[in-house]
Order: sequence, then structure tokens, then C-alpha cells
Amino acid sequence: MNNKTDNNLMDKIVSLCKRRGYIFQSSEIYGGINSCWDYGPLGVELKNNIKRFWWESMTRLRDDIEGIDASILMHPKVWEASGHIKSFSDPLVDCKKCKQRFRANEINSGVCPECSGELTDVRQFNLMFKSHMGPVEEEASLVYLRPETAQGIYVNFSNVQLTSRKKIPFGIAQIGKAFRNEITPGNFIFRTREFEQMEMQYFVKPGTDEEWMEKWMNVRMEWYLALGINKDKLRFHQHSHEELAHYARAAYDIQYNFPFGWQELEGIHNRTDFDLKKHSEYSGKEMGYYDDVTKERFIPYIIETSAGCDRTLLVCLIDAYDEEEERVVLRLSPKIAPIKVAIFPLVKRDGMPDIARNITGMLRPHFKVFYDEDGTVGRRYRRQDEIGTPLAVTVDSDTLKDETVTLRDRDSMKQERVKISELREKIGKII
Amino acid sequence: MNNKTDNNLMDKIVSLCKRRGYIFQSSEIYGGINSCWDYGPLGVELKNNIKRFWWESMTRLRDDIEGIDASILMHPKVWEASGHIKSFSDPLVDCKKCKQRFRANEINSGVCPECSGELTDVRQFNLMFKSHMGPVEEEASLVYLRPETAQGIYVNFSNVQLTSRKKIPFGIAQIGKAFRNEITPGNFIFRTREFEQMEMQYFVKPGTDEEWMEKWMNVRMEWYLALGINKDKLRFHQHSHEELAHYARAAYDIQYNFPFGWQELEGIHNRTDFDLKKHSEYSGKEMGYYDDVTKERFIPYIIETSAGCDRTLLVCLIDAYDEEEERVVLRLSPKIAPIKVAIFPLVKRDGMPDIARNITGMLRPHFKVFYDEDGTVGRRYRRQDEIGTPLAVTVDSDTLKDETVTLRDRDSMKQERVKISELREKIGKII
Repeated sequence: MNNKTDNNLMDKIVSLCKRRGYIFQSSEIYGGINSCWDYGPLGVELKNNIKRFWWESMTRLRDDIEGIDASILMHPKVWEASGHIKSFSDPLVDCKKCKQRFRANEINSGVCPECSGELTDVRQFNLMFKSHMGPVEEEASLVYLRPETAQGIYVNFSNVQLTSRKKIPFGIAQIGKAFRNEITPGNFIFRTREFEQMEMQYFVKPGTDEEWMEKWMNVRMEWYLALGINKDKLRFHQHSHEELAHYARAAYDIQYNFPFGWQELEGIHNRTDFDLKKHSEYSGKEMGYYDDVTKERFIPYIIETSAGCDRTLLVCLIDAYDEEEERVVLRLSPKIAPIKVAIFPLVKRDGMPDIARNITGMLRPHFKVFYDEDGTVGRRYRRQDEIGTPLAVTVDSDTLKDETVTLRDRDSMKQERVKISELREKIGKII
Repeated sequence: MNNKTDNNLMDKIVSLCKRRGYIFQSSEIYGGINSCWDYGPLGVELKNNIKRFWWESMTRLRDDIEGIDASILMHPKVWEASGHIKSFSDPLVDCKKCKQRFRANEINSGVCPECSGELTDVRQFNLMFKSHMGPVEEEASLVYLRPETAQGIYVNFSNVQLTSRKKIPFGIAQIGKAFRNEITPGNFIFRTREFEQMEMQYFVKPGTDEEWMEKWMNVRMEWYLALGINKDKLRFHQHSHEELAHYARAAYDIQYNFPFGWQELEGIHNRTDFDLKKHSEYSGKEMGYYDDVTKERFIPYIIETSAGCDRTLLVCLIDAYDEEEERVVLRLSPKIAPIKVAIFPLVKRDGMPDIARNITGMLRPHFKVFYDEDGTVGRRYRRQDEIGTPLAVTVDSDTLKDETVTLRDRDSMKQERVKISELREKIGKII
């Protein structure tokens, strides 16, 4: 039975996440806090593995991208220059009768969709979280929680370029939290007010931007395929002229076919020289680049690849979820699975637990492992299938004779006997 | 020349960090924002390596600790229960004449230290950053940026315990950002308003808390030694009765001898059952633990180990900084150094750059590498010494004959010839 088209798929995933320790509602004992989620023991490993895979493929394995980690709190002028203070807002209407708020673009009838009451005029609501830094709450101390990590890259463009001595074209990558006071968050961790971005800004010579845009579209699509995501559930969506943000010349989304429809997973944008020009204008600082071959100075164009870490994690879970007659199985790519190897003694006697614990100690420096001796071995396999552990090692009575164990594959459920001394290398190859 | 006692050591480190791309002032092009810092290309690698080393030693290499990653925004009731809304404050006074603010405990004379003006009475200033969630700024929408990651662990205690089926004693670890609206931040990244914590809360049976406190003090001190920190610059400081926080029965700091004196690097606290009791009281939820061997139900005691990621990074830099007659050298432990191997062609001809680039490609999947062909090789060595790269590989005219390269050690500056085919294994052993 393949339940991928099941309407209840999201419910099943939310339930699995809570039951197995992937994702809990934040502050659950206090009734939760809207749209905030906590990653549990398995969730944090999955998230770290996704972030590491992104970081390695975007920085360590290339020689044209440097990483940074900018602070969440930035000078408020940054958000003036970027246009966020002026334009990063949603149009809202209030119902005069029931007091509920709605996004104006979700209203069709001209009256309140809840109680048919009269609506107020449209007002702009800025999506940035505000706070105050320092002891006095006054205009001068106003700060914002960054609504995107990108600006931390732009304001550091010259610092990074000069200290790393990079030549254009080159990129700057960053992983970090961002915050948006969304009016209508929802769909589990798909749209939340606190989220983590994986953004890369690639600085290119004007005129080469279209070519680089195409290259990055391909590279980023390949990344999701390398993550093991089903090709048929991924597509590009080109932004029409109406959809384009004020800073963009061209924009494509990589979309995934979620249970709630095709939605954005990553945005790839040709931002032109908009950002560096604006920051140069607002800061009075030179933000250009001097090409010492052509002896030209210019403001680079930017191709941005902006991915959501939480969304990617959700896609990994949805895409990996499968139901068979006897079991639920998360077919996560071994490279991102939270636990790589489960280790079981078949029974709790005849010295099997000791041998299994020794194997656990032997594999632990190399892989995230999990030792379990409770319940029937069948039940232990099912539990690991459901959390996506690709391999299970079982110590049984044959082990006592010939120092071999069974190595079981999650997907095929096939078992083979492997010598304990060859286990590490064998597992290393599979993972 | 050993400059460790130099009064200008902090200035030198701040300057090196900016010059080489370790740490920049946040929003520098806008004049900066007080006490916020951005990690540059080298800084982000060093920070990630420190976090990974903590995470692996605290979670992956043990079977008694689970990780989580809770959201920064939590239900405001959390901060009522924890005592932060009532007690997490500094006493402040204002000068009526020049309007400056001071921490009351820093005033000795009874008058303004700046202008000798009259001071106001002492007022309590809460150190939590406030914001509003949702479109309406009202009491009901008030949220705080968490001032510590610990509470995200406490409120998830039962969720983690049940899903991971852990038995007491066990711990929960977390790395994440926290925010405190400090009145007097300073000393570079030592005390900042936005910072990253590495916290572990260990849940134990009452009565075993003192024994576990001692164990954790040892484990955590060993961790800094394993990070390569000089033993003579580390010590324990026991909190006196007056210093103890309201939740603590006993508290020790691991202190480091910074250029500005002995200061806290990590706090190890016996928090008793204070936290779980308070959350149980405020939430109305059972926060106990049922011991199925003794058939007892009890509220666990908590031993907390709370380390600052940014502070640890600062300690690594200070401790590693050394000046010799001919060079500045950062003697970072290879395990955390941002770049592991630099690869140079001796000169830009005779095919040396091609060979060096091939070696770069060969080593890149395994280590963070850096290729450099510009300037004299002596200058290239100096630059890598200054950023703490433990190894450098140089392709020279002998390479063309016998396929060997020189492998240079940062600390001893000794060079040995190594076959290209054996390079990867050799480097792996050193790192």
C-alpha cells in the first residue's frame, strides 16, 4: 500500500514526529505557542545532517564560496536600505464585528468570511519582529529580528572579498535563523514565524548574470536529487512579472508537490545590483569591485539561492514516508538519517548483550549508533524502520560460534552475515 | 618573544580577527551595532568545529545524552515559571543631569561618575528582549527572546524521556542562540547581547546529585583540555552563598585567565528540582519520573553544564595566539582549526600549479583545504601560520621528478617529504 496520495499524510507525519521524537510543539506543556516547533532527539540530528550536507556541498567542496555567520540583530539602517521597513508588509483587514484579522488578498466577498461583518480599509502590516536594545524603549533603540539572512551577507561583501582575496565570480553562504511575523503560519513546519535559512549569494559580473542564474538553477535542483528526493515531485516555477519582488529581475522557485499542493522549497533570484547599490547609497560606503585584469570597477550582480532548512526537512520526511502491510518505513537517504546503525542482541542472555555493547562502542566513533535490547527483535526492527535507520546489526547464537552478525537493510529487509571485524568498513561503504 | 602577558593582546586579537576574516563588527558599514559581531569565513569554520566537537563528545560518543533544538520564541509562561520575568534584572540608576545610565552596583560615590550629577533611585531593569507575535501589539501577544537555552530542555523533559525511553540518570543537550539585553556588554565577543550557548541538563535521582556534580565538573574541565587549552589558565571558582542564583544549591564556574582577568567560561550548577517543580506548578502537568525498578516516582534533580560558544572561541584564539621574532602564529588544535591544509605550488610555472590543484581536489573531500599560488612561498606560510592552519603542502621542482611534496608543520616549521599517494593518510593521522 502506497499512501503518498493519502489526505491524511500530513497528520500521519505530524503524529510520527511527535511519537518518535522528531518534532514537538514548542512549550507544549503550556498549550504550545502558535507556529513554533522544537526539534527532538531525532529531529536535531536530521536537521544537522541536512545543514552539514548543504554546507559541505556549498562551501568545502568548492573553491568559489566562502561561509559566514552574521548576527540576527543588525543595525536598523540595514532594513531601511533593503526596503524591508517600507515594503516588507502584508495588507490586512479587520472585521469590525468579530474583530478577526485577514490578509486582504484572501478576502473575495468584501465582507468578513467568518461572520459576514463589515471590514475596515486595508492597512499595511510590517512582518518584521521589533524589539529594543539597551535599557530605554525609545525610537533610537529599535532593533528588528532579521527577516532573512541575505542582508548579513550583503553588508559583509567587502570584508569577505578583501580578507578571502576572492575574485569575481564568487559566493558567500550562510545558515541561520530568521523571523517573520506571518499572519497565517501553518502546515506544520512549512510556514513558521521562526525558521532557519540556508542562503548563498553569488556575486557576478553584470552581463554574465543570466548564465549564472541557469547554472545555479541546475546545481540547486541536483542538490535535492542528491538528497534522495523523488524527481517527479520537484519542478521549477518561474515568477511572472506580477509575482517578482521589487529587487528581482528574474526569479524561479524550486517547488515540491506537498500533500497540500505545489509549494516553494527554494527561491533562486537574479537580484541585479539592487542590494549592493542600496547599501552603498545608505551607508555612503563604496560597495564595488575592482577587476584587476580588465581594470574596471563595477557593482556586482547577485544570483541568490535561498533555501528553507525546516522546509527541506519536511520534504525529506514526506518524501521518505512509506506504508507497507506490516510496517511504516521512512526511506531517508542514509546520508541524512539521524541514526545510521541500530545494534541489537537477539535475546538478553548468553552474553549477547555484552557483545552487542562492544560492537556499539566500536562503531560509535564513526557513526551515530543506537543500542536496544528491549522487546522482540521484530518490534525493534519496526521501530528503527519507522525512524528511518538504514541498517541494523543483530547479535545471535551464531555470533557466539563464528563472530559474525546479521546486517539488515531497512528498505529491502534483506539480511546478510558479516564478520564483526569487517563491520565498520562494510557500513562505511553503504553510508 | 611570548606576548601572552601583553596588555595589548586583546587589541591584537581583535585586529587579527578583522584582518584575516575571523570576526567582523556587525553592520560595520553603518558604524556597527553595539556588541553584535559577525563570524567571517574563518570564524564560522572555527565556531562550527567547536560546536561539533562539543556535540560529538556530549551526545554521539555517549549513550546517556540526547540532543534537542528548541525554538528561541517560547510561551511567555515559561519565563514566569522560571523566575526570569520577576528576577532576571539588573538594578539601574540614571543621572538626572547628564541622563546616562549605570548599573547600581558599579556606583560607589552616590553621584554620577561622569558628571557628579544627582542620581535617581535604583530601578530594576529586566534583561530579556521583548517583542510581539501576531499583528496586534498588546499584552496578550508579548513574547521574549530566550535568555538561556536551558528552559527549552526543561519543558521538553517528558517528551524526550518518553520518546527516547531513557532511564535516569540521563541528559539532554542543546546548542543555540540566546539573548540578554546587557547594560554593559564588552570585551569583544566575551559579553554580547546575542550569543550562542552549549548547554546540557543532566537529570539524576535526588541524593546522587553531589556525586554527579563532581563527575560533570571533571568531564567538562577535561573537555577544555582536549580542546588544547593551557591547563594553567583554567581553574574552578566556587560560588559563595551570596553569588548563588535562586535556583542553585551549588555552583562552580570554570574560569579562564583572560587578558582582562579570571572570568567565567562555563557554569556547572546543581539546580535541584527547582526547575521541573516550577514548570509542573505553572503548567499543571506532571513533570516527574517513574523508576520501574524501585517503583518510586520522583522529580529529578538537575546538574547543568552551561558553556558559552563565543567565549570558548575567544579562549581558543587567545590561548593559541603566539608571537615569534619572524611571525605571528595561532597554535590552534588541528581538530578545530578552520583550514586543515594549505596547498601551494612553489612557483607559478613548470606545471606546478596544475599538480597543486590536483592535490587540492584529491584532499578536498576529506579536509577543509585552501589553495594559494600568489606571492612568495614564505609569505604564504606566514599567512597560514597567522590563521592557524596546521599543515602546508608545497609542490616544488622535486615533485616533478619523484612525485613527492613537502609537508610543513605549523608549530615546528619542520618540513618532510611525503609521496603524493600517501598524503591523505599521513594528514589524516596528524589531524
